[in-house]
Amino acid sequence: MGATLIDSSIFGNIFSTEAMRRIWSDENRTAKYLEIEQALAQVQGRLGIIPQEAAVEIIRNCDLSKIDMDKLRAQTERIGYPVLGVVSQLNALCRDKLGEYCHWGATTQDITDTATVLQMREGLALIEADLAAISGSLAALARRYRDTPIIGRSNLQQAIPVTFGFKMAAILAGIERHRQRLAEFKPRVLMGEFGGACGTLASIEKGALETQAGLMAELGLAVPDIAWHTVRDTIAEVGCFLGLVGGSLGKIAMDVKLMMQHEVAEVYEPFAPGRGSSSTMPQKRNPISSCYIHAAVSMVRQHTAALLDAMIADHERSTGPWEIEWIALPEAFCLTAGALQQTRFVLAGLEVDASKMRANIDITHGLVMSEAVMMGLGPYIGREHAHDLVYDLCREAIATRRPLLDILVAHPEINRHLDRNALAKLCDPVNYLGQAGKMVDQVLSHLRA
Amino acid sequence: MGATLIDSSIFGNIFSTEAMRRIWSDENRTAKYLEIEQALAQVQGRLGIIPQEAAVEIIRNCDLSKIDMDKLRAQTERIGYPVLGVVSQLNALCRDKLGEYCHWGATTQDITDTATVLQMREGLALIEADLAAISGSLAALARRYRDTPIIGRSNLQQAIPVTFGFKMAAILAGIERHRQRLAEFKPRVLMGEFGGACGTLASIEKGALETQAGLMAELGLAVPDIAWHTVRDTIAEVGCFLGLVGGSLGKIAMDVKLMMQHEVAEVYEPFAPGRGSSSTMPQKRNPISSCYIHAAVSMVRQHTAALLDAMIADHERSTGPWEIEWIALPEAFCLTAGALQQTRFVLAGLEVDASKMRANIDITHGLVMSEAVMMGLGPYIGREHAHDLVYDLCREAIATRRPLLDILVAHPEINRHLDRNALAKLCDPVNYLGQAGKMVDQVLSHLRA
Amino acid sequence: MGATLIDSSIFGNIFSTEAMRRIWSDENRTAKYLEIEQALAQVQGRLGIIPQEAAVEIIRNCDLSKIDMDKLRAQTERIGYPVLGVVSQLNALCRDKLGEYCHWGATTQDITDTATVLQMREGLALIEADLAAISGSLAALARRYRDTPIIGRSNLQQAIPVTFGFKMAAILAGIERHRQRLAEFKPRVLMGEFGGACGTLASIEKGALETQAGLMAELGLAVPDIAWHTVRDTIAEVGCFLGLVGGSLGKIAMDVKLMMQHEVAEVYEPFAPGRGSSSTMPQKRNPISSCYIHAAVSMVRQHTAALLDAMIADHERSTGPWEIEWIALPEAFCLTAGALQQTRFVLAGLEVDASKMRANIDITHGLVMSEAVMMGLGPYIGREHAHDLVYDLCREAIATRRPLLDILVAHPEINRHLDRNALAKLCDPVNYLGQAGKMVDQVLSHLRA
Amino acid sequence: MGATLIDSSIFGNIFSTEAMRRIWSDENRTAKYLEIEQALAQVQGRLGIIPQEAAVEIIRNCDLSKIDMDKLRAQTERIGYPVLGVVSQLNALCRDKLGEYCHWGATTQDITDTATVLQMREGLALIEADLAAISGSLAALARRYRDTPIIGRSNLQQAIPVTFGFKMAAILAGIERHRQRLAEFKPRVLMGEFGGACGTLASIEKGALETQAGLMAELGLAVPDIAWHTVRDTIAEVGCFLGLVGGSLGKIAMDVKLMMQHEVAEVYEPFAPGRGSSSTMPQKRNPISSCYIHAAVSMVRQHTAALLDAMIADHERSTGPWEIEWIALPEAFCLTAGALQQTRFVLAGLEVDASKMRANIDITHGLVMSEAVMMGLGPYIGREHAHDLVYDLCREAIATRRPLLDILVAHPEINRHLDRNALAKLCDPVNYLGQAGKMVDQVLSHLRA
Repeated sequence: MGATLIDSSIFGNIFSTEAMRRIWSDENRTAKYLEIEQALAQVQGRLGIIPQEAAVEIIRNCDLSKIDMDKLRAQTERIGYPVLGVVSQLNALCRDKLGEYCHWGATTQDITDTATVLQMREGLALIEADLAAISGSLAALARRYRDTPIIGRSNLQQAIPVTFGFKMAAILAGIERHRQRLAEFKPRVLMGEFGGACGTLASIEKGALETQAGLMAELGLAVPDIAWHTVRDTIAEVGCFLGLVGGSLGKIAMDVKLMMQHEVAEVYEPFAPGRGSSSTMPQKRNPISSCYIHAAVSMVRQHTAALLDAMIADHERSTGPWEIEWIALPEAFCLTAGALQQTRFVLAGLEVDASKMRANIDITHGLVMSEAVMMGLGPYIGREHAHDLVYDLCREAIATRRPLLDILVAHPEINRHLDRNALAKLCDPVNYLGQAGKMVDQVLSHLRA
Repeated sequence: MGATLIDSSIFGNIFSTEAMRRIWSDENRTAKYLEIEQALAQVQGRLGIIPQEAAVEIIRNCDLSKIDMDKLRAQTERIGYPVLGVVSQLNALCRDKLGEYCHWGATTQDITDTATVLQMREGLALIEADLAAISGSLAALARRYRDTPIIGRSNLQQAIPVTFGFKMAAILAGIERHRQRLAEFKPRVLMGEFGGACGTLASIEKGALETQAGLMAELGLAVPDIAWHTVRDTIAEVGCFLGLVGGSLGKIAMDVKLMMQHEVAEVYEPFAPGRGSSSTMPQKRNPISSCYIHAAVSMVRQHTAALLDAMIADHERSTGPWEIEWIALPEAFCLTAGALQQTRFVLAGLEVDASKMRANIDITHGLVMSEAVMMGLGPYIGREHAHDLVYDLCREAIATRRPLLDILVAHPEINRHLDRNALAKLCDPVNYLGQAGKMVDQVLSHLRA
Repeated sequence: MGATLIDSSIFGNIFSTEAMRRIWSDENRTAKYLEIEQALAQVQGRLGIIPQEAAVEIIRNCDLSKIDMDKLRAQTERIGYPVLGVVSQLNALCRDKLGEYCHWGATTQDITDTATVLQMREGLALIEADLAAISGSLAALARRYRDTPIIGRSNLQQAIPVTFGFKMAAILAGIERHRQRLAEFKPRVLMGEFGGACGTLASIEKGALETQAGLMAELGLAVPDIAWHTVRDTIAEVGCFLGLVGGSLGKIAMDVKLMMQHEVAEVYEPFAPGRGSSSTMPQKRNPISSCYIHAAVSMVRQHTAALLDAMIADHERSTGPWEIEWIALPEAFCLTAGALQQTRFVLAGLEVDASKMRANIDITHGLVMSEAVMMGLGPYIGREHAHDLVYDLCREAIATRRPLLDILVAHPEINRHLDRNALAKLCDPVNYLGQAGKMVDQVLSHLRA
Repeated sequence: MGATLIDSSIFGNIFSTEAMRRIWSDENRTAKYLEIEQALAQVQGRLGIIPQEAAVEIIRNCDLSKIDMDKLRAQTERIGYPVLGVVSQLNALCRDKLGEYCHWGATTQDITDTATVLQMREGLALIEADLAAISGSLAALARRYRDTPIIGRSNLQQAIPVTFGFKMAAILAGIERHRQRLAEFKPRVLMGEFGGACGTLASIEKGALETQAGLMAELGLAVPDIAWHTVRDTIAEVGCFLGLVGGSLGKIAMDVKLMMQHEVAEVYEPFAPGRGSSSTMPQKRNPISSCYIHAAVSMVRQHTAALLDAMIADHERSTGPWEIEWIALPEAFCLTAGALQQTRFVLAGLEVDASKMRANIDITHGLVMSEAVMMGLGPYIGREHAHDLVYDLCREAIATRRPLLDILVAHPEINRHLDRNALAKLCDPVNYLGQAGKMVDQVLSHLRA
């Protein structure tokens, strides 16, 4: 029973994924605490900061199955933070008071922040895989439909033809930039925290920076130059990244749902029995996944703003702003995971109706080719005159609802230079795709491995 | 195991409440579906739209315990919405295919929206009670400390004295306005939805509006003039209200955490053993609840923006925007409930140190009384001259770190008119509280029952 | 030269209006300061708090044309707030130091807040008029097209027919709720501020509350029970209202731009030469106003969140949050005004193509009537069987691309009961409009005067 | 006269800067259009795509002073976009209809987007300089106060001592990361746009990609692999960056205003006559700049969300989302510039009261040194016992309001091992600064050139 849709047993797998939820679960968070306490004991035992015997005993007990989660809840509600509860339970598990040496020199936020970074690393790995898969699907679509005409739409108006592959490749270029961003910021944000009460490591007399370095080496995280308890740009940067990824997914969903309109009918979300259909309206094929994506990313961008808000931290350990991250970050990851999963599903099985795409180009009876016609007539009757003449003939076509080609063929000034065949060629969208194919190739040639 | 803090078994009762989570749980949502289907069958049986026998059978089976939630999850993931799954299970529970008559003329969104409204009614009732309790605590504080001086602070600078009761009453006035708002919008937003596929009730040949009216009467909801499937101002209005309430709670938390600073130390969150304390820093008393409130309401205001976003709905049933509400509304309610609960706790047991308040007034050695002194000397030496003279003497007091009173007493132009006693009276904050008490009384006299 | 689009000499009248910009201009803000100082002098002269001679002199000089705006800018940059600059200039304008009596007992924020409230009153009056005009246009459309069929769309899929009047009336119902909200909150938010340094009016020895009451009476504002310098729910409430109005306008824009798609072509923004057209793509008719509306309201909802943020005010006079309002409130009003103006334009001249609406209903060759057919056949062959049979026949219609009517007519089990004529009637959208007309009437009958 | 604070003649230089406003002004935007048209003519003349004579004539007329801005406003209000107005005026300026060759193959959005990128380049250059200056000030403060003790505060409670240099260096580390981010994303986002109506460059028969490459070379911008008319991650990325920078500035402002509290009084914004002072409350020294910073960045983070929203663009040229950028981007830049300028001012002249910092450490009479005392006694009486004993003595110190040192000295179990001198050393904050100095050095050693 979850009150949020993310944790709902009914909706959870729609708006998020099991794998991402597990990362941000109470269990995994607590496991990360133990992983850090274990690594800390290991390093401090090795450095002789705590007795080796204590290190061994602590490490032996850093085991999630030994933690009483109900007790932890009670401890957390009393103390306000779960780390001390875990430390106290761990302490009690160790023989001969050796547990006193656990958490040596650390503060609650050191463990919490480092755990968050470890969780982010896991979460980003999932996102990285999803982006790669989405990139793969988009690349396949771009390649396959490289030369398949579809009307380009500007302001939701038919403009000039492009190709469906071009449409996919343009989106793909953005996805590739996300992958580049991720590669750039990962080393920056996957940085551990270990500074003690106010970040100075005063609580460790000797070997403080060695402990910090050793701990981060154990955990595979970057060593900070200085504590970042209240300097939260790296966390907010991840929030921005999730917002940016969401923006791209929202654009995909927007296009899919527009193309799935009955009146357009150019692509469909993958068919699954019962999905998006109605028992009394058999004509319907709802863009269910696109709806979910739209909603999830609309939330995530607000979480981005909340994570920026969390940067307004006071002094050495903040009073409220930090807790904004606790709420916003897991949700942003979970919803992004849901949107990524739905997008993967949509793109991997996207049904493309190339003939409907072609047919839609024709619904203006050639008007969308007017730019091409103007250009084609230019050499014969002058560019400017061609423009004005074709523009007038288009108005005539609209008024009389006749095909532009017929009007062109009938016009003496035009048919003097070009016959129906030549004019039909000018009016053929396939001949007015510009650099669409080359641009697709450019994008495909720059894909990340 | 929850991935969100709201549903976390560790943090859930800190950032939300059990009672509010239950309202937005899978169970209660599903129970509301059944409650609506039951009411619908009842009304339609009574109106003769469906056979009375069917109504009886449907009503008999509208029982949450009969619903297989695992199956419902699977159905929801397949179909995209849980209502049809519930209807199909309900149908299967009924003998002799009488279940075919359930959900008669309804569409998924009718049931979902009306369930949401019923959940909002329950959620608003909890909030109403919390606001009443907070109002009660603030009123008690305002009354008790009506005449207790505390320094008024402007731009985080000491300005002139006010009373702690005045401080509480000013906040109380805002809480009372929230209660007024709630009373105003409840009749507007607690409106049911019943319109069929596109809101026209075309699916019911006879008795359509009678069914609608009867259903709403059964549920105690307002009857809409027209379907509001994609006209979502009432839902967004509730989101705005939650944002507004959050703003008030955030102000309370801000003041409490500022007053709890060591350097200020005027009030404290209620003492609870272990709460907000540190094992190595015994001097600390962390404003734990204020932190939680700050974080929760920072999230809620972004949910408000998301709910406004959800208003941009397309045509008769929206494609994504609606689902924003699914995510944002339960979270906004749950986080608001958490913030309200923490605020109740803080205010009900707030520790007030009136003597420290008094002492803080004195840390500027009388400078905060300069406005009072200027005004008090005016009648003797002229207002303007009094201003300039006192201003100069204040500068002297700052430069020499001497009490303003001593400087005033020593000044020949001043001590000619007023002796130390009279000047001390001018410098006494108790004599410069203005209308604080009367304003407190005004607020208290206008409390809602 | 403006850096913002609102103040851009190029874009200003697109994204805002001259009238609303004037309300939030430096000139009008300063004029409001003077209006308040004038009223204050008037009241305090009358009450004998300041010399009548001073009151007369101050009132005489409360004249915007006497204020040196360049000097005011310099003063503001130095002091941080413009009110003292105005007071100091006003003071200097008065003879015989009588100006010393202006601003008596007031603090900067008293004047600033009250000026903001006066500006809001003017701004809300414009919005009220716009909402009334929009309501009028929607009512006219609802009335005129009460019975004009258009396909109802759910999830951007054709569902069942509704009427265009119904579509307009549903939106109208939301606009009418906004007008109701405005009427409800106006008395609450149009409340003046007059409290002195920390809200207690300590700066006025006698007649403090009388001054406050008199001032508010002069200005036509509500008298506050207590100072609200840092209790900002009323300002944020206005921000919420603007967000809510924006949501409704965004929905209108969304529907218009979807209906203007070439593939849909049911309505058009009013024609204006050159507007939204392309010199090389004569087929285009861009939904220009809808674009602007969409963008403006997307900004406003984030301003709403910012105004909620501004509620987190500290102590008696806040340190930063207040200034959020300074930025957000004028912009929210200006952008809302722009969106309202564009919406008025769109609705007042909306071109409606009823025949295209009718034609679009037919593009599924009758499938959108399947629900109606199921219901119509029910009495003859049993509801459940009718459902299954029709559903199968619809699948056949989709597969064979034949009209549903032809398939129905050809089916022996069906044509036994109903001939082509009767079946055609079942398939006629005009006969399946449900309560659309009555719902329109209900909305129209409840319009605010 | 501006309605927005950014363009207000009174507030403009407070919340923004002249330099940044100029970048986003109508004049500069229009100048950029001309710069691009000029570069395009140059390249296309060189490539032989347009006559060289036309290129020369167009280039000659690309002169902002020749543009009639009033006419441009009228054109923009009619057409909806200003680019065509500029092109039409430019065309009219050219002799012999040679102007027909300007804007050859381009679409409105090509010019608009590329202009925006050029404006962003200018804006980012200003921000880069501001960040460098802020970095410089923070580095100077970190260096100068590397060893100056100040109490570290956690949850607004005094925790353990740190140094003021450490506090500055922690913030500095975040500023340096911003500079790193800027260096990383600049090559990605400073990418031009040139794609024609739907991005395919179909409008240029020969030399399309050569024109694109040449144009970008002229302008010093990256060449896109494919059109990005509706793939807006790069614009939104800049919005995220501004939000992140704002977060850091907000943190600085928060700390400054907290430290300026009368009760804390550790640092002050630079003194300027009249600034932040009150005529009747001479004790006040308002953190004016911090207020402005707080407000500006609170707005910017909402603009970030709006810019993420703008990514949900439809098809090849979006219908509303694009215009969100028009509004949000200039404002985000202008407000960020204002916040940066205020931060520069604050940091460059920050008044630091090291003695008050030292005095504040003592207000708990040594309690903040309890952790140090626990650690110092450990070797003598056992760590665990030391903890418990000291904790008890601290409680006693709190209860009796006696200095911890006195209590320690008086305790037989303690004075057996350490005399007053030794205990005083343990209680001296200077001896408990941990790695603060080394961390400062680490940050300083990694500064960007």
